[in-house]
Amino acid sequence: MIRTETTESFPCNNQATMLSIPDLIKKKRDGNALSDEDIQFFLQAVVEENIQEAQTGAMLMAIFTKGMVATETMALTKAMKLSGEVLSWPEEWAGLVVDKHSTGGVGDKVSLVLAPALAACGLKVPMISGRGLGHTGGTLDKLESIPGFNVRQPLPKLQSILAELGCVMVGQTDSLVPADRILYALRDVTGTVESLPLITGSIISKKAAESLNSLVLDVKFGRAAFCKDLASAKALGESMVAAGNNLGMKTSAVFTHMSNPIGRCIGNSLEVIESLETLKGKGPSDLMELVSTLGGVLLVMTGKVSSLSEGGRLITESVTGGAALAKFQAMMVAQGVSNENAQSLCSAQADYHRILRRADHQTELRTHTQGVVIEIDGLVLAEVLHQLGAGRTNAGDPINHSVGAELLVSLGDSVNKGRPWLRIHFESPALTPDQTSRLEGALTLGGSGDKPLRGSLIEDMIPPM
Amino acid sequence: MIRTETTESFPCNNQATMLSIPDLIKKKRDGNALSDEDIQFFLQAVVEENIQEAQTGAMLMAIFTKGMVATETMALTKAMKLSGEVLSWPEEWAGLVVDKHSTGGVGDKVSLVLAPALAACGLKVPMISGRGLGHTGGTLDKLESIPGFNVRQPLPKLQSILAELGCVMVGQTDSLVPADRILYALRDVTGTVESLPLITGSIISKKAAESLNSLVLDVKFGRAAFCKDLASAKALGESMVAAGNNLGMKTSAVFTHMSNPIGRCIGNSLEVIESLETLKGKGPSDLMELVSTLGGVLLVMTGKVSSLSEGGRLITESVTGGAALAKFQAMMVAQGVSNENAQSLCSAQADYHRILRRADHQTELRTHTQGVVIEIDGLVLAEVLHQLGAGRTNAGDPINHSVGAELLVSLGDSVNKGRPWLRIHFESPALTPDQTSRLEGALTLGGSGDKPLRGSLIEDMIPPM
Repeated sequence: MIRTETTESFPCNNQATMLSIPDLIKKKRDGNALSDEDIQFFLQAVVEENIQEAQTGAMLMAIFTKGMVATETMALTKAMKLSGEVLSWPEEWAGLVVDKHSTGGVGDKVSLVLAPALAACGLKVPMISGRGLGHTGGTLDKLESIPGFNVRQPLPKLQSILAELGCVMVGQTDSLVPADRILYALRDVTGTVESLPLITGSIISKKAAESLNSLVLDVKFGRAAFCKDLASAKALGESMVAAGNNLGMKTSAVFTHMSNPIGRCIGNSLEVIESLETLKGKGPSDLMELVSTLGGVLLVMTGKVSSLSEGGRLITESVTGGAALAKFQAMMVAQGVSNENAQSLCSAQADYHRILRRADHQTELRTHTQGVVIEIDGLVLAEVLHQLGAGRTNAGDPINHSVGAELLVSLGDSVNKGRPWLRIHFESPALTPDQTSRLEGALTLGGSGDKPLRGSLIEDMIPPM
Repeated sequence: MIRTETTESFPCNNQATMLSIPDLIKKKRDGNALSDEDIQFFLQAVVEENIQEAQTGAMLMAIFTKGMVATETMALTKAMKLSGEVLSWPEEWAGLVVDKHSTGGVGDKVSLVLAPALAACGLKVPMISGRGLGHTGGTLDKLESIPGFNVRQPLPKLQSILAELGCVMVGQTDSLVPADRILYALRDVTGTVESLPLITGSIISKKAAESLNSLVLDVKFGRAAFCKDLASAKALGESMVAAGNNLGMKTSAVFTHMSNPIGRCIGNSLEVIESLETLKGKGPSDLMELVSTLGGVLLVMTGKVSSLSEGGRLITESVTGGAALAKFQAMMVAQGVSNENAQSLCSAQADYHRILRRADHQTELRTHTQGVVIEIDGLVLAEVLHQLGAGRTNAGDPINHSVGAELLVSLGDSVNKGRPWLRIHFESPALTPDQTSRLEGALTLGGSGDKPLRGSLIEDMIPPM
């Protein structure tokens, strides 16, 4: 059943140990560490379909329940990377190719600001994203709310945009890490998504196949994040940093709070608007803090600057000075947006909704009492927006780019009773009483002496080596 | 993906809990107990193929690694039983329908003697066996070494043979416990065979679908058994006894040593010969002890006798008195063996090899020293005989009924150097030096004061309630 052919890019069979697939499953089942050859053999069987799906399901569950030591996770990540095409870049870009990966947050539009800012600082940023099944859309969905924006670009075009502008934002191609496509689909149905080694392999293999020089990870923790606390975020971050560095990609991680939404807009087109406002120097401070920190880390890793503070300042200047906005405008045009629309969106007094469709209905929620805003539950907002059509449940589901929410207050604000605090953009049918009630419960007001539960978004990091 | 149709015999869907298959996998993955409805829903999905194979593989591994509590195992067994046809018997047989199941041993020909002995005592014994992948053949393979013996009998024929004779020995039909056929094939390739709840479900569901009144289990332990020690055998036995009783089938277990072979013959046709010799009152004492104990338990459970000793005596008498042999002869004829051959095999001075093919070659191994026979490693003998063709590796593989071995010494015998102790029946090619060397290593001789490592075959039991 198992062939053991070898190929240049995937030079592995299991002749060293002569273990069969059932043997490998039993080895992991019994809590033993798989060898590099074992893992390569398993991955090869997965990609070549020389394995029964039931065996893959059993192995995924064995990995889930028994875990993997760091060397196994590294071997898994490497084997996944080598399961498909590995990009290559012009020699003159050596050291300059970077990317950021976030484990996913509510209102997280960092990529839309960070990619052009990094490009403005002279780096090459091939942002290749997947389409998540998050509560609201992913980066690709946000970009697609801009009429004409095409996230599917053939590789030569992608490289020419990068050469000219320094940043490009596209979806995954089938040629990169086919093992992940197969395994992820099976993890999704077998209850094996939330596995540290499997998450590490999935994320880092795809970034490594982009042949990045440096990668910064935004590992979120808190109620609205995959990692519910800092400890689990650190475990995941350390695993991913180790696997990334092991593949010769400089990798750092920043650990950030994820309970309140990032910035003040949630929902695809609303987040594009907030990103554009940010690129015009009028962004919320938490978003700018995150953008400058993550960008600063990458500038240090690529040797563009010698300190994180210098890196952060450079990123901030590229935003406030308009250089990042110019990059974003050019990228929109390069990826299919009309010159006129791109120019209009990037103008100082843009009428965004002339170009980005506005939802049919808006409604505002008001505070029921006075107090200080100490928390806004991003998870609740995201879940209700998902029900209203802002996100997708299954791959391929349609998404409504116009559905979303604007926060009308900030953490720490003192508000009176009856103050509008949330504007919901929705389509028919109207919000149900339950949805309204849930949204109202997302706002926590404290007494006059109370402070917001969160200070800085950024809690900790694994700094550049 | 999941339909929730109900049928009369399988009245289960998961509307009570509304859990999906991935939810159920996660529930077990996290070590929680599945409800009766959860298990019925999973089994229904398996049988109706409303589940991805990867999901079944993951669930099997989750069950393997997290185990099941007794109530889950019982629910699994019940749902498996109800996945297909359940036999029914004439009312007048109420309380009389019995069977025995062994977890498998080297030289275990107990069924061939026990079934006709029980029939001679007035019980109804529908012995329905699977074809194992054991080192040597299973009961069906042994019977098929008799020319003409047909282990495939349609149900009406099976019932008429039972009505007339009281015993019949056949293979499984596709209609009984289809869930087990599907799950066993997947367990085999996913490293999830050796799971106590899955073994319990597989064995007991099939026996329960035979609508037995009473079942006795021969749970073996030791080097040549699935359970390597008494503790694990007891855990398995207790699980199976609980599941059997839960389904209204009186169930007991006997725990027996399995390191030395049972009796003196190993291999399909050789074991038929030894069974016939036993039915003629000339069997080895260990085999007769096992037959009379297991039979005695069933006679107590069916109320035919009031004590185990009385039951054992009745079984022994049915063998020594010839009544069991007459049943076996009639069963052979009823299942396709010619009258002449059946009569010849059952005659006092039978020339067995006139009817049962003898292997082309025989060779004898001799002792290298003098001493007392304290152990004969049945596992080694079985493994070498398997290599020589006596067993099958994959379902459907051919088997050589003539390959086997005869022990020429018994435990406790004092032997001189150069004494023949093992006769191997084999075909071309000859035994390899490695095979010969392994066989020689199977015999352990001790000094003059030493005693065999095993006394009685029977170590313990869970007696009839």
